[in-house]
Amino acid sequence: MDWRSEIEAAAGRIAGHVRVTPALQVEIAGIGPIELKLEHMQHTGSFKARGAFNRLVKGPVPAAGVVAASGGNHGAAVGFAARKLGHPARIFVPEIAGPTKIALIRAQGAELEIMSGPVSEVFAAAEDYAQRTGALQVHPFDAPDTLAGQGTLMREWEAQGLEADTVLIAVGGGGLIGGALGWLQGRRKVVAVEPELAPTLHAALKAGKPVPVAPSGVAASSLGAPMIGQFCFGLATGVTSVLVEEAAILAAQRLLWDSLRQWVEPGAATALAALLSGAYVPAQGEKVAVLLCGANPAPAPYG
Amino acid sequence: MDWRSEIEAAAGRIAGHVRVTPALQVEIAGIGPIELKLEHMQHTGSFKARGAFNRLVKGPVPAAGVVAASGGNHGAAVGFAARKLGHPARIFVPEIAGPTKIALIRAQGAELEIMSGPVSEVFAAAEDYAQRTGALQVHPFDAPDTLAGQGTLMREWEAQGLEADTVLIAVGGGGLIGGALGWLQGRRKVVAVEPELAPTLHAALKAGKPVPVAPSGVAASSLGAPMIGQFCFGLATGVTSVLVEEAAILAAQRLLWDSLRQWVEPGAATALAALLSGAYVPAQGEKVAVLLCGANPAPAPYG
Repeated sequence: MDWRSEIEAAAGRIAGHVRVTPALQVEIAGIGPIELKLEHMQHTGSFKARGAFNRLVKGPVPAAGVVAASGGNHGAAVGFAARKLGHPARIFVPEIAGPTKIALIRAQGAELEIMSGPVSEVFAAAEDYAQRTGALQVHPFDAPDTLAGQGTLMREWEAQGLEADTVLIAVGGGGLIGGALGWLQGRRKVVAVEPELAPTLHAALKAGKPVPVAPSGVAASSLGAPMIGQFCFGLATGVTSVLVEEAAILAAQRLLWDSLRQWVEPGAATALAALLSGAYVPAQGEKVAVLLCGANPAPAPYG
Repeated sequence: MDWRSEIEAAAGRIAGHVRVTPALQVEIAGIGPIELKLEHMQHTGSFKARGAFNRLVKGPVPAAGVVAASGGNHGAAVGFAARKLGHPARIFVPEIAGPTKIALIRAQGAELEIMSGPVSEVFAAAEDYAQRTGALQVHPFDAPDTLAGQGTLMREWEAQGLEADTVLIAVGGGGLIGGALGWLQGRRKVVAVEPELAPTLHAALKAGKPVPVAPSGVAASSLGAPMIGQFCFGLATGVTSVLVEEAAILAAQRLLWDSLRQWVEPGAATALAALLSGAYVPAQGEKVAVLLCGANPAPAPYG
């Protein structure tokens, strides 16, 4: 797959549908100078709108509309994109999505099914729905169009003047980091950061192949994929993979508020947690950047 | 007063002490395309760090340190700047500052006096303290160095490529808008937005001179000055002044979360409230910008 071309095409497709989110350089006490990308300011509060619009604009979208399985953020983004483009949407989520994300999906006008079983059953239900109805399935991470859409983020950040030698990115199913790796093609170091309780990529790198995990913990509603995606895994063989503890994630979430007045969800604080906890220690002079990818925390300031 | 020169000098003085905060262009449903400046990402969560550093770096600061009266945000900024530069700080606040801002000032290591009387008594107490101890008083808005420091914000925004014909700015004592007017010198239209319950500039423009007001309402802890400053008033004679209702301020605060995941305080949502409520209606094709100036809301996500 020529990921650079796919991502260029995606960028053209979604321009005007997604926001160019701010990038900045900042000094944070206890961390030092870093670059940040405020992608949680994207529509519906996460990067997921990029992949969703890429798939839906590319089309064709059948009359049955679109369907997606999601921990929450992807579902909200697909619902948002479907409404903007005039398609019906059906979203399947696990209970761990939580009330904030469930309300957010409902607010997009999407039909919603909340399932009590494990995340793998949610994926199976979406697949079954697609088979039965002919609806277009938009995979949350393991599809080329999803990955290429998310890859537009790193393209955009570089166009904004990203200087970092190293970019830290949180990993769930691997759509975001896969897109970044597909765009960067080794030109910068990428550090994959995962919660100890949701180590999809870490487990796969150890096993030499994607293996099922049973995600849990504070970031499960955004990073709790059942397994790393095949496309991401194919791109991630050389990546630096680190794990962070639950307490470090919550400390990083708090630091982002205390220092920068950004109130993100735990999954989006996970990359910063690697610097805060020392799970990743930059070399002398190494310039680092941290991607803030989502802000649908629970409880949110509203609903 | 040559405000442009004062502001240029201030910018040189505070560089390295304050953050360059993000500016962006964004489309908000119900508002349209606007430019925003995320100045609530400044140290201690508001623009006040600019004026505080300008005064303290300029010095000289006596051994007795610095003193300030404040609704909360200015006190936190003076405390922050004083600690960074190695000076003791004494801050006087009214009870309406509220627990979030009081905790924030304490976190800077400043000595704090919380007063139960009206804001005018808080100012008198700070003045008295300065007289007795020789401490350097840093006025929250009505002093040239404060105003010039805040003026660096508009200078910075223009350097970031601000395109707007019209900039909407919330007004309390007038330090921020005064600095903006001093920098702009009529080159762009400025709309002064105030809560109906804290109309310092509006009342002054009506009376033809600064007059005392008794501020109250949801934005009182940031916009609740007892009277518009003389320096601001001298700059603001041609400004467009509008008032917004309490409900519009709270709706704008909510919109900033729902649409952009920015959780600012009511005072910082006041400028956007003018667009949302129709208190200010841009002409066809008029490009508008809104300054988000503070994010010390109560309750905050933490403390």
